[in-house]
Amino acid sequence: MTAMSRIERTLEEAIARAEVAAGPPRLAAALRYAVFPGGARVRPMLCLAVARACGDDRPEIANAAAAAIELLHCASLVHDDLPCFDDAATRRGRPSVHAAFGEPLAVLAGDGLIVLAFETLGRAGFAAPERLPRLLTTIAAATGVPHGIVAGQAWECEPSLDLSTYHRAKTGALFTAATLAGAAAANGTADAWSLLGERLGEAYQVADDLHDVASAAEDLGKPVGQDAAHGRANAVDRLGIDGTIRHLRGLVAEAIDSIPDCDGNADLRALIQAQAKRFIPSSLATRVAA
Amino acid sequence: MTAMSRIERTLEEAIARAEVAAGPPRLAAALRYAVFPGGARVRPMLCLAVARACGDDRPEIANAAAAAIELLHCASLVHDDLPCFDDAATRRGRPSVHAAFGEPLAVLAGDGLIVLAFETLGRAGFAAPERLPRLLTTIAAATGVPHGIVAGQAWECEPSLDLSTYHRAKTGALFTAATLAGAAAANGTADAWSLLGERLGEAYQVADDLHDVASAAEDLGKPVGQDAAHGRANAVDRLGIDGTIRHLRGLVAEAIDSIPDCDGNADLRALIQAQAKRFIPSSLATRVAA
Repeated sequence: MTAMSRIERTLEEAIARAEVAAGPPRLAAALRYAVFPGGARVRPMLCLAVARACGDDRPEIANAAAAAIELLHCASLVHDDLPCFDDAATRRGRPSVHAAFGEPLAVLAGDGLIVLAFETLGRAGFAAPERLPRLLTTIAAATGVPHGIVAGQAWECEPSLDLSTYHRAKTGALFTAATLAGAAAANGTADAWSLLGERLGEAYQVADDLHDVASAAEDLGKPVGQDAAHGRANAVDRLGIDGTIRHLRGLVAEAIDSIPDCDGNADLRALIQAQAKRFIPSSLATRVAA
Repeated sequence: MTAMSRIERTLEEAIARAEVAAGPPRLAAALRYAVFPGGARVRPMLCLAVARACGDDRPEIANAAAAAIELLHCASLVHDDLPCFDDAATRRGRPSVHAAFGEPLAVLAGDGLIVLAFETLGRAGFAAPERLPRLLTTIAAATGVPHGIVAGQAWECEPSLDLSTYHRAKTGALFTAATLAGAAAANGTADAWSLLGERLGEAYQVADDLHDVASAAEDLGKPVGQDAAHGRANAVDRLGIDGTIRHLRGLVAEAIDSIPDCDGNADLRALIQAQAKRFIPSSLATRVAA
């Protein structure tokens, strides 16, 4: 089974648990809408790739970790789009969850996805409970306070912020958790994998800055210029478009160089190189030679 | 150490983790504000009382389970008070979290508390990982979809709802989880404890209905008549005030009768009787003889 099939199947099983007849049907529909159809599933793909590189001896735990990370990512998108934050009417080229289901169900869908992520871990954990504490604390730390996604979003509510602290929490933390959780799921060493997640997280953030500035709205599927509209600093302001592309390529190279010597090494490099191609908007890809 | 000290100390340790210098300070303040000062801590007290009745051989796990349940309860209050739900300006006699910190931080505080609950479980779980899967799935099921607090709140967004399904999810689930998690933390049998949680959850809901109708705003510390304002059905409409008080006393009696024969039995009965006294507003306590 491909990594993508493992992720989609585990997400499907999680969402299907919300859809029993005795539960509230509109909330169940909002949860499904927030998770399917997915994008590139970048974070769970990274999680499974690291798990494979570490031997993947408990695939059901790795699947749960990957799905939990994606559910938490989806939850953060649903809440970030709310009127009190980005007030985004669209996401992935269609109405955002609050635009489609209303604000109350968007708040609850985000909450429900967070809980579902941890429930998914707990259900898989019956087969290997000794792996749960590390997985649970790794994934929770990347999501919550003081250094996870929730904290990252909260920096936007502070009178001042340190840009790199903000990005590390808002974007980097879940990438790092994807690598660390992949290792934890397969009982691998965490230390060897944190730099990979950190560099990819930075690269993804820089790519997002580049898309935010350079893409047309129809390519991105969400409103562009959000950073400027919300007064957030953007890498392109500091480095220019060409400088940003060079910086991005440097980060991806560092990420690849950080991969430790292991069995799934070649697959992991290939995955990262394939994903890195998506980082640069097609309209800009020819500006700076690779 | 008293049960209340164990709960407060575990909550304090959890909230303190959010308050490190490198995290966003306003979010940390909102988390503390949402959790302290607490009320009667009814759910975590119930959790610890059941853990004690089951031998309490792993007090640090029971403390974490109790604190997790209270953090999830606090999260639900913060989100329920949001403008898109109850739009409550006050809670426990002072401004609600969104009134004090703004809507964005209230959304994030709720999210952060949910994650912190599971992180608290995970941290305690290193000492006894084999108890984590049951604790995690029990507590997550009571919080999420399709039958937990989040689902309960979502029933308010449906065109029609079954009142008892709504109450079971919105209020009953976390009471039942408090008893089941107390048993799970001490490796006790779950079956013996579910009826206690169910009856207390129902009693608490009926008590809330009674307060909503009968109390003055200054006694309750939150706006009264919320059920009527939001078109929600209330036990007092069906049974009248005297009938509701009788029903409430019957539920508490059933809860007490359900307590299995065990060492902490007497303490647990005493706790429930003491809490039950708080269920009936003082202005009504003399209307129907006990």
